[in-house]
Amino acid sequence: MEDLKIFSGNTNPEFAKKVAEHAGVELGHCKFSRFADGEVQVEIHESVRGANTFVLQSTCPPVNESYMELFMILDALRRASANEISAVIPYYGYARQDRKVAPRAPISAKCIADLLKTAGANRLISVDLHSAQIQGFVVFLMIRLFAIPTLARHWREKMGAGDEYVAVSPDAGGVERVRAFAKRIGCSIAIIDKRRAGPGQIESVNLVGDVRGKSAVILDDMIDTAGTLTQAVDSLLKNGAKRVFAVATHPVLSGPAIQRLSESGVEKVWVTDTIPLRPEAVASGKFEVVSVAPVVAEAIKRINTHDSVSALFD
Amino acid sequence: MEDLKIFSGNTNPEFAKKVAEHAGVELGHCKFSRFADGEVQVEIHESVRGANTFVLQSTCPPVNESYMELFMILDALRRASANEISAVIPYYGYARQDRKVAPRAPISAKCIADLLKTAGANRLISVDLHSAQIQGFVVFLMIRLFAIPTLARHWREKMGAGDEYVAVSPDAGGVERVRAFAKRIGCSIAIIDKRRAGPGQIESVNLVGDVRGKSAVILDDMIDTAGTLTQAVDSLLKNGAKRVFAVATHPVLSGPAIQRLSESGVEKVWVTDTIPLRPEAVASGKFEVVSVAPVVAEAIKRINTHDSVSALFD
Amino acid sequence: MEDLKIFSGNTNPEFAKKVAEHAGVELGHCKFSRFADGEVQVEIHESVRGANTFVLQSTCPPVNESYMELFMILDALRRASANEISAVIPYYGYARQDRKVAPRAPISAKCIADLLKTAGANRLISVDLHSAQIQGFVVFLMIRLFAIPTLARHWREKMGAGDEYVAVSPDAGGVERVRAFAKRIGCSIAIIDKRRAGPGQIESVNLVGDVRGKSAVILDDMIDTAGTLTQAVDSLLKNGAKRVFAVATHPVLSGPAIQRLSESGVEKVWVTDTIPLRPEAVASGKFEVVSVAPVVAEAIKRINTHDSVSALFD
Amino acid sequence: MEDLKIFSGNTNPEFAKKVAEHAGVELGHCKFSRFADGEVQVEIHESVRGANTFVLQSTCPPVNESYMELFMILDALRRASANEISAVIPYYGYARQDRKVAPRAPISAKCIADLLKTAGANRLISVDLHSAQIQGFVVFLMIRLFAIPTLARHWREKMGAGDEYVAVSPDAGGVERVRAFAKRIGCSIAIIDKRRAGPGQIESVNLVGDVRGKSAVILDDMIDTAGTLTQAVDSLLKNGAKRVFAVATHPVLSGPAIQRLSESGVEKVWVTDTIPLRPEAVASGKFEVVSVAPVVAEAIKRINTHDSVSALFD
Amino acid sequence: MEDLKIFSGNTNPEFAKKVAEHAGVELGHCKFSRFADGEVQVEIHESVRGANTFVLQSTCPPVNESYMELFMILDALRRASANEISAVIPYYGYARQDRKVAPRAPISAKCIADLLKTAGANRLISVDLHSAQIQGFVVFLMIRLFAIPTLARHWREKMGAGDEYVAVSPDAGGVERVRAFAKRIGCSIAIIDKRRAGPGQIESVNLVGDVRGKSAVILDDMIDTAGTLTQAVDSLLKNGAKRVFAVATHPVLSGPAIQRLSESGVEKVWVTDTIPLRPEAVASGKFEVVSVAPVVAEAIKRINTHDSVSALFD
Amino acid sequence: MEDLKIFSGNTNPEFAKKVAEHAGVELGHCKFSRFADGEVQVEIHESVRGANTFVLQSTCPPVNESYMELFMILDALRRASANEISAVIPYYGYARQDRKVAPRAPISAKCIADLLKTAGANRLISVDLHSAQIQGFVVFLMIRLFAIPTLARHWREKMGAGDEYVAVSPDAGGVERVRAFAKRIGCSIAIIDKRRAGPGQIESVNLVGDVRGKSAVILDDMIDTAGTLTQAVDSLLKNGAKRVFAVATHPVLSGPAIQRLSESGVEKVWVTDTIPLRPEAVASGKFEVVSVAPVVAEAIKRINTHDSVSALFD
Repeated sequence: MEDLKIFSGNTNPEFAKKVAEHAGVELGHCKFSRFADGEVQVEIHESVRGANTFVLQSTCPPVNESYMELFMILDALRRASANEISAVIPYYGYARQDRKVAPRAPISAKCIADLLKTAGANRLISVDLHSAQIQGFVVFLMIRLFAIPTLARHWREKMGAGDEYVAVSPDAGGVERVRAFAKRIGCSIAIIDKRRAGPGQIESVNLVGDVRGKSAVILDDMIDTAGTLTQAVDSLLKNGAKRVFAVATHPVLSGPAIQRLSESGVEKVWVTDTIPLRPEAVASGKFEVVSVAPVVAEAIKRINTHDSVSALFD
Repeated sequence: MEDLKIFSGNTNPEFAKKVAEHAGVELGHCKFSRFADGEVQVEIHESVRGANTFVLQSTCPPVNESYMELFMILDALRRASANEISAVIPYYGYARQDRKVAPRAPISAKCIADLLKTAGANRLISVDLHSAQIQGFVVFLMIRLFAIPTLARHWREKMGAGDEYVAVSPDAGGVERVRAFAKRIGCSIAIIDKRRAGPGQIESVNLVGDVRGKSAVILDDMIDTAGTLTQAVDSLLKNGAKRVFAVATHPVLSGPAIQRLSESGVEKVWVTDTIPLRPEAVASGKFEVVSVAPVVAEAIKRINTHDSVSALFD
Repeated sequence: MEDLKIFSGNTNPEFAKKVAEHAGVELGHCKFSRFADGEVQVEIHESVRGANTFVLQSTCPPVNESYMELFMILDALRRASANEISAVIPYYGYARQDRKVAPRAPISAKCIADLLKTAGANRLISVDLHSAQIQGFVVFLMIRLFAIPTLARHWREKMGAGDEYVAVSPDAGGVERVRAFAKRIGCSIAIIDKRRAGPGQIESVNLVGDVRGKSAVILDDMIDTAGTLTQAVDSLLKNGAKRVFAVATHPVLSGPAIQRLSESGVEKVWVTDTIPLRPEAVASGKFEVVSVAPVVAEAIKRINTHDSVSALFD
Repeated sequence: MEDLKIFSGNTNPEFAKKVAEHAGVELGHCKFSRFADGEVQVEIHESVRGANTFVLQSTCPPVNESYMELFMILDALRRASANEISAVIPYYGYARQDRKVAPRAPISAKCIADLLKTAGANRLISVDLHSAQIQGFVVFLMIRLFAIPTLARHWREKMGAGDEYVAVSPDAGGVERVRAFAKRIGCSIAIIDKRRAGPGQIESVNLVGDVRGKSAVILDDMIDTAGTLTQAVDSLLKNGAKRVFAVATHPVLSGPAIQRLSESGVEKVWVTDTIPLRPEAVASGKFEVVSVAPVVAEAIKRINTHDSVSALFD
Repeated sequence: MEDLKIFSGNTNPEFAKKVAEHAGVELGHCKFSRFADGEVQVEIHESVRGANTFVLQSTCPPVNESYMELFMILDALRRASANEISAVIPYYGYARQDRKVAPRAPISAKCIADLLKTAGANRLISVDLHSAQIQGFVVFLMIRLFAIPTLARHWREKMGAGDEYVAVSPDAGGVERVRAFAKRIGCSIAIIDKRRAGPGQIESVNLVGDVRGKSAVILDDMIDTAGTLTQAVDSLLKNGAKRVFAVATHPVLSGPAIQRLSESGVEKVWVTDTIPLRPEAVASGKFEVVSVAPVVAEAIKRINTHDSVSALFD
Repeated sequence: MEDLKIFSGNTNPEFAKKVAEHAGVELGHCKFSRFADGEVQVEIHESVRGANTFVLQSTCPPVNESYMELFMILDALRRASANEISAVIPYYGYARQDRKVAPRAPISAKCIADLLKTAGANRLISVDLHSAQIQGFVVFLMIRLFAIPTLARHWREKMGAGDEYVAVSPDAGGVERVRAFAKRIGCSIAIIDKRRAGPGQIESVNLVGDVRGKSAVILDDMIDTAGTLTQAVDSLLKNGAKRVFAVATHPVLSGPAIQRLSESGVEKVWVTDTIPLRPEAVASGKFEVVSVAPVVAEAIKRINTHDSVSALFD
């Protein structure tokens, strides 16, 4: 395994350290800084000629800076004759823009994938991609890793399983993810159906499915401003849920998210460490972090030794 | 508009004729046949040099023959110096394979898109693509057209709207499509959640949402073997639905589909003409066809005159 | 050689088994089936990460199904991180369409080559390609293997060599192939020159060269409908040939081919196993099959061990 | 000219307005904003189908945000069927990283060019590129516009020309630019040769050429932190220059630049409006802005009417 | 037709002039020269922005210089924003290397085609390509023009037609070309079959077919050293041919060709003007030149006005 | 190192032999010749399957022949399944055309780089490229090697170092190269500023910097016609230089170069062996050759053993 090199970008160095540790290697020596005018400066302080390189960079906010850092180190690795170059992006920023949501909108998630390839990536690795189809955006290798098994296992250990729970999708798009979780803890599902009768009219929040007397777990791939999530919490409590929890892979937690969650009726929010948890979130006491570094490290090791990655999730 | 030429493949000539008529042009002269050994033979009997060409080919069964015909005419048009080459694929075969469903599975829907580009297509046009993200599989132009507005308008005219209806998704993946229809006819939604406790165990079919005393409309983008659909019909009737209907864009109707639907409790199935309706289906009396040829024709005209296509669906 | 994996498509499993045996490996575990609507389903049941993979698929009829199967497994292998992906196509369907035979015709043999590359092939391997120039259709690796040496050796063993034979080309295009064979058995050559004076006029079949009193061997790369071949047989007998034989690499044998040959004056037809011989052909007793599996297996082994493939044919 | 559309990014809207005015068109309606998590949101509020589009975006600080905006609108325009897409980048950020300055460094200026192409640009247009060779980084169209003629004309009008001036390059790399200016105002040249004897030793600043009693004009393509520039000012004054001026195309003015210039002995700094001048710079009274909007507008018009752009600089 | 521009390289300016005249335009102003060290210098003295450009360059000897000139002007036209760029190569050098003739040989004719595309060509146009399959070497446009109809028409006018003639292929590869000519003048065919029994043994030249008492016409696409041709002449005369003529499209005439032909028994050699006839050849009195400039000019005009080129050869 | 193979083109076999010797391998067996019509014929007489191949070819005059040879062997190596293919071009012809010097000029140095990649090169290696930015012309690997350290070391050994010397740039473009040399021998710099007041006017040659009483060393990357260089020699002597020397990496020495240098006041000219020194140059006694074969060999070895190449120049 001597030709395996893991480098870390600026966004989530703690995660990178854990991954390297689990993979049994030291982090490669590199440095990202800025020139006076804000341009990214990349320095790689060891030879990578012929090495299989993995660059860890969660593209969480500042998302645009994160991607530009990534583009530049990819170019540097390619020109330094690295053998394979994998961009490991535990949280794939812009993933929600995976379709044209309006006339003349970009499909940013696809554009980003193409830019990564152009900059030099031979392989992308990501955790809980917003949609499975993003894997089809590329012809080169994109490997999807999953946090749901880790989160569900963690949930079963801490909370148990069975019919006293109900897994809830906060909107129509996430029902498949909810089913995957519900199957693992053997519970039923419910869906929040928000709708606005017309422009300027009040949004109605309907709950499809039965939550009365149950402990509800809202599932999502990420928490951004937490508006949808806290609305779901309210709706579930109003519809008779006994307790409400949330489980989400990526704690983006933009703007009012942390305050909203602190003030809401949710008891506990499980997230992973694909994005470093903000100090205010830590302080709120509402969050519990489950690490997926072992999963990412194991995948890297298997890639490097030509073992099956999919077997990881059997 | 003199440089607009529409050609038709073998799979759905009636539809092509209608589209050409609505677009105000005659179908281009071409012929698809087979050599003795089964190889596709393409003959184009008029000059296409500098023309904007549109090839209509629904890639319904025999799906592999349909695609090979399409590849060959695309190559022929390119080598004959056509200016623009659009593959109009009302029903996009392989669209359900838009993600890796198992280890070492292909992402066939993406592979097909790349093959079409390689063969010579500059633009793809399709109706009610299985998933919105397929548009992101390509960097060149892919235009999504929608049958839901046409189908919903048709429904309102025939059946009316309002709370006496409930729109039902036969599985977890199609909830967004159901919401789009439900909004247009102002009704609530429900979801079928099928699940198997473990290998070898009986599948349980749970209904999430309330259908008691209502007329249920099952929505899907296509009907293939109709297994899921007829299971949903049973479940809805068992859960107290007054009447059950189905609305689906693409009538693939493989294997036992027509018989299953004939024998099931569904009253009526609305489909479009992206795929020619089989004689047995016509004979069954359960089907009603709503044409989307005007939508496709209008899109082609707008592309040719540089007008906005998205405005078609405002 | 542990990282060499050979997979077989559906068209010629017997040949694949023989090749694997000669190469000293077991066939890889994979399965091609069809979904209810006819779409290809590929399942690969073992890890291929980092392996050098060879997919054997003769693209004989049903040629379009064969190619679509091939495209899909190529995509699957690529996404499963195979190191090298070789499409071994003993009989390359569409090879006769290697030029534009009419205005606005495709060059299908080139289009197919590009589609194979797009789907994921790094290397193509084929036996007795219809024309040598097809190798120039690709910039990536295409390896031509030859059956003529095997067939000629076989002929010499069974029939001997020398001036009592004459090697005959059934049309103007195949004279080079005939010369290669004639040199190996030390005989003269003749050519059939078919010509039609004008539209609606009778075709005249002229024999260029002398066959009187000799045993004639008609050489071709494939037998499709056998029309040209049986016409040549008649002409040779009429011009005084003592006996008439045929040698052809690929037994496509479409439509009336087998009946025509059975009824014709040809004594024996030598073919190879690049295409499985049809039961009716076996029953006719006119065919003798010479296997080229050893040649294909040897080429695969040499590629895998970085030995010269051209040396095989010195 | 009805199919010409000019859009402006966020970085230099005043410049875009001027360019549109000079080109005789209204700015296209589009909007760049940010989602809560910082991702770029692009909205284009008018059809661009078939139009020749020009996007004006100076990639001045925040340079990474500027580029990500640009990538996203390029993707949007391409997917909206624009005919031609030109990225007009008056100041091309990352241009100084046009070579590998250290082992394993990226060539960021090249990487950026490739990313722009990948995102959808058919043509790049830039003013006073840091080096002429950047034009060779692309195989598609890159058009270089020049500010030196405008600046030199302005200088002649305000300051006159002749031997009382000396044009000075602040380092070894910019001598060709200095010659171009010097030829236009008919003066001699001088060069600053900074050198450090070894690590940890004091840098010596040598002046090559004679400035005694003359008015010196320091020429550069951009002013970043102004460290090199103010060092040059000191050196020139110390070596007997009577007065010192500076002329630079792009006023990047990072960090301490404005303060340094304010405190230095430079009398006046001429810059262009490729980058909006910071309020502190305006307040300092040391800067004079010469607009190159007419040059950019004229180039756009000529491209749109198929006239020669190079003739602009004859 | 005002946007049509024809430029000429250095190799065959007379031909270019004729083509331009027939096409009704003036030759574009450009100049090819050499720097002191032999590097090609291209100067284009008029704007080509948006124009459809055709560069005429026969790649006859000095073939390598001819191609390098062509690459450089293609790059220049692309960077000067020409709309379409067609390389018109009446004689396509390296065409005989259209297959791998030995282990580890290049396929130079394919490599050249790719280089032309890389340098900027959108379309290739050539006369009597050595093999039809070369058209399949490219996915972009390659147009084959034919001299045989012009040559056969010329022959009929001068020499008449019918059974007193026999069309002869000097080797096994050119039989199809011979048939095409023979059909047009209604005569039979014959083939020269050269063969060497083994290394170091004398080559035997066999004539397949009957020429006794006839006037023989040897057909070939080009005459290079004329070794094969004069050998054929001898063989034909020895076998009783009354008179011997030769018809070949491209008069390459390398090394001893002209002397050999002068001394041989061939009466007259018809060639075209795709390559300028050498003064010694003119002086020999054995050659007659038939111009194909009208054919090339007509093709260019039809491409420019979007008319069918294939109709030219109906 | 058994899979390392070095092949030599025709232009500089002596250099190739030295490189192979220093690299510890024998030169690969290959032969470049010409067909009668001047087309390049490449023969490779040993298997290269899976090997890391390096082709040495200085593209000195005849530059166009040199490049065509190189294209053809690259294509041959690719088709013969070489693993890696590096084009080692000690002197990179066309490098001076690295920018658009006139309207509608090509950027030949970029075009050449793209042609090399198209022909099959995975990596370019060159010594003292005319400009550092040429490395940015490619996205694949281009490795720059440097002769300045070798030349400067040689100079110090022979001539010593210090303030008695002045390093001179013969024009405005080469000042950075001069600084690099000047730093190594601890001397000051000067620049020749040639200028013409207007068309038809006499060129004035100004010396910027002080050379009085010093030994001047003119530095350049190549000597072509030596016009600029000998003009510089005159100017330096006229301005009081005690002695004048020249140091240049590539001895192109076109046309009158050798005579000019022989007749000029330059004492000695140091060059390297990237181009074989012409016999007349050897005879003149003015030249001294410093070999860079060890540097090139060391780089090849390091690439092959995955060691850092940049460390060579630390």
